[in-house]
Amino acid sequence: MDVAEIYPADRVTVREVGLRDGLQLVKAFPSTRGKQRWIAEEHAAGVRHFEVGSFLPAARFPQFADVRDIVATVAALPDAHGIALAMNERGQDEALASGVPEIACVVSATEEHSLANARRPRQKAIEDIARLCALRDASAHRPIVHPAISMALGCSISGAVDPNEVLRLVAACFEAGADAVSIADTVGYAGPKQVGELTALAVKLGGGPITVHLHDTRGMGIANAAAALDAGARILDGSLGGLGGCPFAPGATGNVVFEDLVFLCESKGFSTGIDLPKLVSVREVLQSEMPGEPLHGALARAGLPGKAAAA
Amino acid sequence: MDVAEIYPADRVTVREVGLRDGLQLVKAFPSTRGKQRWIAEEHAAGVRHFEVGSFLPAARFPQFADVRDIVATVAALPDAHGIALAMNERGQDEALASGVPEIACVVSATEEHSLANARRPRQKAIEDIARLCALRDASAHRPIVHPAISMALGCSISGAVDPNEVLRLVAACFEAGADAVSIADTVGYAGPKQVGELTALAVKLGGGPITVHLHDTRGMGIANAAAALDAGARILDGSLGGLGGCPFAPGATGNVVFEDLVFLCESKGFSTGIDLPKLVSVREVLQSEMPGEPLHGALARAGLPGKAAAA
Repeated sequence: MDVAEIYPADRVTVREVGLRDGLQLVKAFPSTRGKQRWIAEEHAAGVRHFEVGSFLPAARFPQFADVRDIVATVAALPDAHGIALAMNERGQDEALASGVPEIACVVSATEEHSLANARRPRQKAIEDIARLCALRDASAHRPIVHPAISMALGCSISGAVDPNEVLRLVAACFEAGADAVSIADTVGYAGPKQVGELTALAVKLGGGPITVHLHDTRGMGIANAAAALDAGARILDGSLGGLGGCPFAPGATGNVVFEDLVFLCESKGFSTGIDLPKLVSVREVLQSEMPGEPLHGALARAGLPGKAAAA
Repeated sequence: MDVAEIYPADRVTVREVGLRDGLQLVKAFPSTRGKQRWIAEEHAAGVRHFEVGSFLPAARFPQFADVRDIVATVAALPDAHGIALAMNERGQDEALASGVPEIACVVSATEEHSLANARRPRQKAIEDIARLCALRDASAHRPIVHPAISMALGCSISGAVDPNEVLRLVAACFEAGADAVSIADTVGYAGPKQVGELTALAVKLGGGPITVHLHDTRGMGIANAAAALDAGARILDGSLGGLGGCPFAPGATGNVVFEDLVFLCESKGFSTGIDLPKLVSVREVLQSEMPGEPLHGALARAGLPGKAAAA
């Protein structure tokens, strides 16, 4: 996989991460058929990049038990690109074997969070990335390796995070062979100034594409996405209806609302190729599959601006 | 009233407009006592600028029948500043007689909207401002005259709005004697690029302070506020819990959420003097006074970031 083909530097790519990050915390999971409808309808609306699930023990994470099926679902759609998360060596091996064209993995921004959440020091996470990159280079399909620095803009354990630590980890990921690196505001602590400043520095490193992964926990999601775009990021994540939540703030909103994010990109002159009314209508799949789950987002309530305004 | 004292150019002022704009569309109105608690508790949290109501016929707009009482409520609080809206000559006369220290009025950005909504050409609205300014100059208390260009970023009737028309109207307001002028995204059509560009041009005119009044109809409210701040605006409006709605989009969100706006300003390094946890707790007044009214906002759900992060 050529990262520049999947994520062209001259346009904005928005990625649907609801099937992974959005399902991390929900109470009811969509069926495999439901996920497939979700993907097919979003694909028909123009979405091309899907995070499909995580390679985790199915007993503890039943929502991702069908991850291989969903990898295959995306692979069967024209120009669609699937991404799967792998949290450890076993997950990486399984992801590699699944043939998914992109493997995401995680490095905590702080040592405290890394030890508490992944039970390993950050250095081990970097070594796992180097290992995965070696396996990638030896593979036939050469998936994109795309680590994320979680808690990069504030940590649920340590609080404020030193941006220089984050930049050091971003550089370490690229040195380990990563094709792209995400900066994640995992718990939605940041405002646009902080997001813009860190993104600009990460882009300036020049190691490769920088993704900005935002949560709308404190209502700053869209403003932070605008700041990330202004700072040069060209890959942004969101989940339809803002599906998901925050393990540290019960009732909080989840990922930045995908359809509102698309509206933002278009309003800033970045064409996403996505048909917004079609995208909004896919919320019906989520509502029927997860009837108890609150969906967020302003565009779905208000509709697009009047026709004359859109002209 | 010296506008530079009420709105110092070297800091950001956030104004609570929920008692006027937020009540324009609600089904149940708060009691006068409820409004007074709302104001007193927000004042205790550090809020100083309150739009208190509109001078309109009480028979048709019962939610503003107590506007004179609320003007007096704000006047009695230390350092608090009250603003009342006047839509026509009669309203202006009444507002002037009430002693309210600031009178807001409206000019539609488009001729079509002006004729349909206010049944007058825009030129008449400008003449009314000149008349109000003459009355102000002859008054003892000399209230601030602060017109808003409604539909300045998109019109519910005409669609797209020519920014040069808006700038012409902003200049005409200042020439008529206005102390400050608001740019209003009345129906929430704009994204941050458009808001930033128009704000920068309006600030550059140099006529006086520029307020940016935003609605969160399509989820862009906070991102648009960030863009307005970046472009040099130093007065922003919001309503607690995003109270209000949009007459052209039933079920849509209303004004930008006041508490999330305060969080944004603080995150960008603009000190507002407002205690956020105290401000969020004032939502209880709205909930008990208007139990059926949906309140929006992410901060109220998620809470502030952890203590260490806030340090």
